[in-house]
Amino acid sequence: MLKIALGQMEVVPGRPDINTSTMLDMIAEARRKKAKMIIFPELAIPGYLLGDTWEQQAFLRDCEECGRRIIEASEDICVLFGNVGVDWGKTGDDGRVRRYNAFFIAHNGRLCGGENFPYPFRIKTLNPNYREFDDTRYFYSLRKLAPELGKSVEDLLRPVFLNLDGETVKLGCMLCEDGWSDDYSVKPMAAINRNGPADLFINISSSPFTLGKNNKRNRVFSRQVRETGVPLIYVNNVGIQNNGKTVYTFDGYSTVYNGRGEAVGYCHPFTAELKIVDFDLAQKGENLPPVSIPDDRGIDSIYQALRYGLSKFLRSIGMDRVVIGVSGGIDSAVSACLYTQVLDPENVLLVNMPSIFNSQTTRDLAYKLSSNLGSLYCVVPIQSAVDLTARQISETPVLNLKDGSKFYLSVSSFVLENIQARDRSSRVLAGLAAAFGGGFTCNANKSELTVGYCTLYGDEAGFLAALADLWKHQVYELAEYLNKYVYGTDVIPQEIIDLVPSAELSPDQAVDEGKGDPIIYPYHDYLFRAFMERWNRATPEDILDWYLKGTLEEEIGCRPGLVKQIFPGPRQFIEDLERWWRQYTGMAVAKRIQAPPVLAVSRRAYGFDHREAQNGTHYTARYLKMKKELLESGS
Amino acid sequence: MLKIALGQMEVVPGRPDINTSTMLDMIAEARRKKAKMIIFPELAIPGYLLGDTWEQQAFLRDCEECGRRIIEASEDICVLFGNVGVDWGKTGDDGRVRRYNAFFIAHNGRLCGGENFPYPFRIKTLNPNYREFDDTRYFYSLRKLAPELGKSVEDLLRPVFLNLDGETVKLGCMLCEDGWSDDYSVKPMAAINRNGPADLFINISSSPFTLGKNNKRNRVFSRQVRETGVPLIYVNNVGIQNNGKTVYTFDGYSTVYNGRGEAVGYCHPFTAELKIVDFDLAQKGENLPPVSIPDDRGIDSIYQALRYGLSKFLRSIGMDRVVIGVSGGIDSAVSACLYTQVLDPENVLLVNMPSIFNSQTTRDLAYKLSSNLGSLYCVVPIQSAVDLTARQISETPVLNLKDGSKFYLSVSSFVLENIQARDRSSRVLAGLAAAFGGGFTCNANKSELTVGYCTLYGDEAGFLAALADLWKHQVYELAEYLNKYVYGTDVIPQEIIDLVPSAELSPDQAVDEGKGDPIIYPYHDYLFRAFMERWNRATPEDILDWYLKGTLEEEIGCRPGLVKQIFPGPRQFIEDLERWWRQYTGMAVAKRIQAPPVLAVSRRAYGFDHREAQNGTHYTARYLKMKKELLESGS
Repeated sequence: MLKIALGQMEVVPGRPDINTSTMLDMIAEARRKKAKMIIFPELAIPGYLLGDTWEQQAFLRDCEECGRRIIEASEDICVLFGNVGVDWGKTGDDGRVRRYNAFFIAHNGRLCGGENFPYPFRIKTLNPNYREFDDTRYFYSLRKLAPELGKSVEDLLRPVFLNLDGETVKLGCMLCEDGWSDDYSVKPMAAINRNGPADLFINISSSPFTLGKNNKRNRVFSRQVRETGVPLIYVNNVGIQNNGKTVYTFDGYSTVYNGRGEAVGYCHPFTAELKIVDFDLAQKGENLPPVSIPDDRGIDSIYQALRYGLSKFLRSIGMDRVVIGVSGGIDSAVSACLYTQVLDPENVLLVNMPSIFNSQTTRDLAYKLSSNLGSLYCVVPIQSAVDLTARQISETPVLNLKDGSKFYLSVSSFVLENIQARDRSSRVLAGLAAAFGGGFTCNANKSELTVGYCTLYGDEAGFLAALADLWKHQVYELAEYLNKYVYGTDVIPQEIIDLVPSAELSPDQAVDEGKGDPIIYPYHDYLFRAFMERWNRATPEDILDWYLKGTLEEEIGCRPGLVKQIFPGPRQFIEDLERWWRQYTGMAVAKRIQAPPVLAVSRRAYGFDHREAQNGTHYTARYLKMKKELLESGS
Repeated sequence: MLKIALGQMEVVPGRPDINTSTMLDMIAEARRKKAKMIIFPELAIPGYLLGDTWEQQAFLRDCEECGRRIIEASEDICVLFGNVGVDWGKTGDDGRVRRYNAFFIAHNGRLCGGENFPYPFRIKTLNPNYREFDDTRYFYSLRKLAPELGKSVEDLLRPVFLNLDGETVKLGCMLCEDGWSDDYSVKPMAAINRNGPADLFINISSSPFTLGKNNKRNRVFSRQVRETGVPLIYVNNVGIQNNGKTVYTFDGYSTVYNGRGEAVGYCHPFTAELKIVDFDLAQKGENLPPVSIPDDRGIDSIYQALRYGLSKFLRSIGMDRVVIGVSGGIDSAVSACLYTQVLDPENVLLVNMPSIFNSQTTRDLAYKLSSNLGSLYCVVPIQSAVDLTARQISETPVLNLKDGSKFYLSVSSFVLENIQARDRSSRVLAGLAAAFGGGFTCNANKSELTVGYCTLYGDEAGFLAALADLWKHQVYELAEYLNKYVYGTDVIPQEIIDLVPSAELSPDQAVDEGKGDPIIYPYHDYLFRAFMERWNRATPEDILDWYLKGTLEEEIGCRPGLVKQIFPGPRQFIEDLERWWRQYTGMAVAKRIQAPPVLAVSRRAYGFDHREAQNGTHYTARYLKMKKELLESGS
């Protein structure tokens, strides 16, 4: 029986000192509990998402030194951990010193696994380079190393021989993506086993939460375990890490699979935890009873990730007080509820900022919400400042210093809308937050961010956009979840949920008259999702194609019959499609470039996970042809 | 004699329709001029920096269709061009349809080069993945394809056989990075020539301007030409492309090298141009006289790139009017001069926004500058709005809705500084710009951006940060260049150049008393540059090391003797070092995440070229040890 400790630790990115100290504590605890082996996540010492910190040689040396301390601590216990592996004598493709994303196996104060490998550590074979991942930028992969040594990748994929109490255990050591090889021509698990066979696979990961990822991971990993017949232990970290524009939560959910591919143990999600399993290698772990792992595709998982991410992000930037503008609408209400879950209500200041366009209805709802939450609350009207701004713009003479002439500018109603939005955020909220000793939040959702239906330096501003990876319908779902399961009472008044969504910036958006946003969420949420999240991003060409085939609603996932209901005919359908496509690829890009960090939950979040250029709008030749034919057919 | 046309075209990223039309025009012109061959840049049809647009299958089909039109146009002329090469039957590492960054050779309506290659086009061998480049994210390289086919990369690197008037020409076809192989284990030029030899190398590129890049390119390319004895033609595009956060200019500078590695012809930088050369293949181009290519390391090249980039960026986003806040300081003065070079002065509105802290000196200088430029000008005082904001913050009761108590916030002088900065940008400039029908500029420089010495939604805001890749000393250099060479008169008053740099946000920054910024530019410019631009990014460990060795000034490039002059001893030196390192890795990161796009000129610009995470400050163990020893030694 092999007593194995799963070290599901919180990794603090860029802090090898803190991480090493966490690991030393966990090693001591595992030793006390008589474990023979402890497994830590990928890049446990440096962290994973560090930007170009990898180019600091002092940082690399620091990580190596921390690694030595862990190796020294491996007396009587085998310590498996991720760290950067540096070859100071070689360069990577960027010409700098060569770095590997490496798997270290330390036992009795020395490293194992160098016998049949060019380094005293193993290295990652598959370096992901999609979504938020930039592995190829920073690490040299086994796929590149092999041809350099005149070998095939498969040749180098061999188990590590470990002597545990006189018995040899053949470990199949993998790093994260190595277990997700479906899209690659190299299959590390199969290759290691062919060159073994292996007794046990270990996958150390640093894998961010994405809605439904674990369901998929259990399928993908179980299948490979069944194909090889070799049990597998997956260890992932918890904590948060970011690429600047996008903040990721790491859910942990470390899992033990027996040789039949059944999960026989797992660590709790979003929880730092040392889990001990008594693993019978001869029985391939079938001594342990199968367990059922919770589904991670629902709104409850989103709530868990957001709450965890918010709490960790605030701690990481040293912020313990926030200011939230509450309009009486749904987004700010959900935002207020989330923050009040992770901060004491006395550290949450909700602010209502009415202008002449705000109804008594929403003002009352903002107060009711705040009252339900028991937070701090104040009302700062913006009308006088907005009037002053409009006056200064329209009454200040603009001099032409070439010819001495002068003229005056005028303030349109559209200009006035944005003046209001900026007045609220950049003047009032930013000032209040500074005086309060905290930051102010951005409450924008993903639908708004997709088409730039928000004002730069206005409602788009804030230190974090916690809801910006949720479509509007998910914001509503989350509101109901918060009331029902988190607060157990209608902390968000039902009227807020029932109210027509509106920015209330002009008479055209009067909620009491049922007027509101130009976005028809039950349709546009899904159209925007097709532009943004679909595997092969949909463009007007695809959308029009589906429209013509009558499969649009099915393809994008909105309610059947909706399209006919909204658009009298193709002309209106096309006008709408082009309007939002222009926004999505035009002004909205410019706005996103200056947007706050987004807390990611979906399989495609704005920021670093969705790279984009301010290139303007393009329609393919085929789209233009289809459109022409359709409109000329007179329908 | 072979008449070759270098098609140094402007590539518009994401617009295959426009680019194809440009190419067809150039092909027609080349044919009229009796050229036998025309060469277009890398990815001439789609453009290079497109973000995740590569995931739109409709876009890929559109590019393929445009490619077919170019191939059809190759009757009687050989057309070499870059386009995306799609293998619809295979996937890339991201699981999506496989894309290659491809080199097409079309002649008489069909493609050449497929005889000894798996595709009817050649593909890029080396995919750069550093700085702003994300090639590995989007394109499958020859390095990955070769092992998949059971071949070595070198096997696949063969010349293309081209029949020109009955004579066979062996072309060595390369894409951009393939010519920059120093840091890679694969050397495409040498390999192609070994498998040839080749008669002529063609390198098609999409290579952004970077200060001094062409000097280096001429060295690197000439050397390889000398080593192989094969002449080389390099064709690069002009125009601008961006990754959202960073805007790049493309300088073209297409160059012909004879077999001795001498440049024998080049296209003008930043100019769309069809250049015809009469190239004697038998003589390896030595029939043409060597030419001297201008140096591109000086302030004149920076000016050229900024002016070109500004002009193209404004056009690309459809903006023809700008508003610029002019404080009477150097940054806004340089900004105003640049914009007035690319826009009519009647479309440039300069705005002075005094508060009680602004001296008459700077107000007068702002007017004098505007008057020299003959632009539009207005004065919008901010004091009344700032007072209103401070009053609203301090006089609004904050209610505690849990216990019914209330309290008041207070406005510190630091809070008041940021209120002023935000009032100027988000309230006045943004409102004025909207009313004026344009955008407002961000005038921040790289020194400020490095340590976040600017206010979010304040002076850091704007549609573009045109000077944000220039250190403060470069801004001064540019000011003198503008006066001397561009305007030929002191359009920027000498007093602005002589004035102490100051934000004028408090009595501590009174310019008339010689008070100003906390940044000592003659030293900190170089310290910050060592953090940010140095090949192996310097950290406090490196800096302290050099300080102790007495080599600091030499290492970072500032004036000798300066460090001793500024810091009485190690304690003050360390305090200063840590202060700015904390800023650089702390609050400044948060600010840069929401900064406007930066116009890049250096070898390391903020934004996509410098990836960073909001991870806070770390000191290595060795730094902390050195610091402790130094401070304890009592010196």
